[in-house]
Amino acid sequence: MANNRTMILRRRPAGALVPECFELVERELGPLEDGQLTIAVRLLSVDPYMRRRLDDGPNYAPPVELGAVMIGGGVGEVLESKNPRFAAGDWVVGPLGWQTLAVSGGAGLRKIDPRSGPVSLHLGVLGMPGVTAHYGLTTVGQPKPGDTVVVSAAAGAVGSVVGQLAKARGCRAVGIAGGARKCAHVVDALGFDACVDYRDASFVDRLREATPNGVDVSFENVGGPVMDAVLARLNPFARVVLCGLISEYDGPGPGLRNYPMLLTQRVRVQGFIISDHLEVWPAALGELGELVAAGRLRAHESFVDGLERAPDALIGLLAGENLGKQLVRI
Amino acid sequence: MANNRTMILRRRPAGALVPECFELVERELGPLEDGQLTIAVRLLSVDPYMRRRLDDGPNYAPPVELGAVMIGGGVGEVLESKNPRFAAGDWVVGPLGWQTLAVSGGAGLRKIDPRSGPVSLHLGVLGMPGVTAHYGLTTVGQPKPGDTVVVSAAAGAVGSVVGQLAKARGCRAVGIAGGARKCAHVVDALGFDACVDYRDASFVDRLREATPNGVDVSFENVGGPVMDAVLARLNPFARVVLCGLISEYDGPGPGLRNYPMLLTQRVRVQGFIISDHLEVWPAALGELGELVAAGRLRAHESFVDGLERAPDALIGLLAGENLGKQLVRI
Repeated sequence: MANNRTMILRRRPAGALVPECFELVERELGPLEDGQLTIAVRLLSVDPYMRRRLDDGPNYAPPVELGAVMIGGGVGEVLESKNPRFAAGDWVVGPLGWQTLAVSGGAGLRKIDPRSGPVSLHLGVLGMPGVTAHYGLTTVGQPKPGDTVVVSAAAGAVGSVVGQLAKARGCRAVGIAGGARKCAHVVDALGFDACVDYRDASFVDRLREATPNGVDVSFENVGGPVMDAVLARLNPFARVVLCGLISEYDGPGPGLRNYPMLLTQRVRVQGFIISDHLEVWPAALGELGELVAAGRLRAHESFVDGLERAPDALIGLLAGENLGKQLVRI
Repeated sequence: MANNRTMILRRRPAGALVPECFELVERELGPLEDGQLTIAVRLLSVDPYMRRRLDDGPNYAPPVELGAVMIGGGVGEVLESKNPRFAAGDWVVGPLGWQTLAVSGGAGLRKIDPRSGPVSLHLGVLGMPGVTAHYGLTTVGQPKPGDTVVVSAAAGAVGSVVGQLAKARGCRAVGIAGGARKCAHVVDALGFDACVDYRDASFVDRLREATPNGVDVSFENVGGPVMDAVLARLNPFARVVLCGLISEYDGPGPGLRNYPMLLTQRVRVQGFIISDHLEVWPAALGELGELVAAGRLRAHESFVDGLERAPDALIGLLAGENLGKQLVRI
C-alpha cells in the first residue's frame, strides 16, 4: 500500500477561481484489482477547459464532484500493472488527474516512447491541444492559401499551433495575445505575420492594420470584446472556429455586440470540443509529429514544480500569465 | 411620355426609421430604349431587409443612394415592351422599386401567370420570403423528423413558412411572435405546435415549457434577448439559421449574452442571404407551389393601399405590427 497525494475540489468557485477551492489530501491506495495499473504521475497538463468543469452548470461533460480528485491529463510511468496492455516501466499519457499516483483501468491511456522526444509534448503540441488546433483550423476553419487567419490566445498551447499550421498552409497568421512579451514571442519565436495586444488601448485599430485584407478564418479562444473586434473584420463567407471562451468562464461577461456581422457577411460559426472527434487524432498527430521533427512547428512550455502548485498554475493560466503550454512537474 | 410617381430616399434614418426619410416625387419618363420595357406596378413587397439597405454601413449589398427610388420587389403588368422576352399584358415579378411605373432592362424579372392564383403570392410564400424559408430551414437547418424547430417572427412572411415546412417534415414547430393575436394565428391558422409571446414577462419560462426536449434548429429573424432565450434551450449539435436580426437594424442593441452555449453545445451558426443562392429557387418554388396547391401551406397577407403609404407600412413592419406578408397595393 502506498500513499497518494491528491488535489481535490473542496468547493466550487463563485466567479473567479481561488486557491481555496482546492485542498491537498493524502489517501492510502488499496491493492490493485485485475485489469488495473498504478501510474506514478510525472507531469500534469493545465488547460482552460478545466475552469468550466468546476461549475455545476450546463456543459458538454459532467462537473468535477465536490471531494473528488481534480480531473486533468497527465504523463506518468507505470509502477505496477495487472492489465495485459501495460507493463511496469511503460510511459503513458491520459486522464491521470491531479495526484501523485493514479490507479487506472486503462481507459483513455496511450503508451508513449520517452526516447522519441520530451514526454511533455504529448500534453501539448503532440497531444490534446495540438489535435484541437489541427482539427479546428483544418476541418472547421477550412483555410485556403492567401486567407487571413486570426487566432486569440495566440501564445497559448492551442493558439500557438493554430498560427504555425496556418503559415504552413500559405495563410497570413495574425495572433491576439496579452502584453508585449507574448506578442513578441508569437511573431519572433513562432513566426506569425503579426500579433496584436488586446490590452493596448488602440487594440481595435491595431487589429485593423494587421488584417488589411479582412479576416477569413477566426479561431476563437477568448470571446467578449476580443471576439467583437475580430467579428468586425470578417470577410464574406468567413468561418469562426469556436474553440474556447475563456473571458466567459468566471461568469457572464459584457456580451457580444458585433454578432450582426455573422449575418451581413454570411459567416459560419462552429463550436466544437475535440473529444467529440476521436477519429481525427491519428492523422492529426501524424502531421503534427512530422512538422515538429522537421523543426517547422515550435512549442514553448512553462513549468511549475509540485502538485501543491497546480491550483496556482490554473489560476495563472486563466489570468493569461503563462506563455505556451502550462505544465506541472510532480 | 408618362408621369411616374416615385418614393425616394430623402435622408438616412438616425436610429428608428421615420416617414420623413422618404419623399414622394413625380418624374416624367423618357422614351423607351431598345431592350427596355415599362411596367405598371400593382403590388409592392415590404420586407425587413429593406431597413438595412437604408444605412451607409457594411452590408452584403450597397445602400440605397440618397435621392434614388427606394428599392424593393414588386408585381406589375407590362404596358409597353422593346424587349423580346416580354410583351404588353405580361405579368412580372422582380425588383420594380417604390414607384407606379418601372422602366426595366429585364434583369431579375420573372413572368408569372395571373390565372394560376393570386399574384401577391409571388412576393410571399411563392417568392423571396418562401424561398428564404425553404433554403434556410432545409439546407442550413437540416431538420430531422422529431426535431424541435423554433422560429422567431413566426407570424411574418418567412417565419410562417418555416414552421409549416417544419411540420411537413415531421418536426415540432414552435413559434415566437409579439402579442396574443399573432400567437393565436400562428397556432390556430398556421398549425404550429406552440407559439410564445416574447412580450410576455414570463417569456423565458414559456419558451422552456414549449420546448420540453430542447431546440435542435433555431431559425433566427430577430436577435437580442429573443435570440438569447433560444440559445439557452439549444441541444448538443443544434443548428442556428441566421436569417435576420430585426432587433439590431435601428442600431446596436443590448448584445448577445448566451453565445457561450454555441461552444458548450457544439452548435453550428450559419448566416445567409437568399440572393447568394439563386440555384435553389426552381426546386424550392416547386415544393412550395405543391404545398400551397394541396392546401398544406397557408399564407396570410396584409395590404395597405397607395404608394404614399409604403413608408408607414415598412415602419409598421419593423415595429412588428403586421400579420403575415406585408404588401402595398398601387
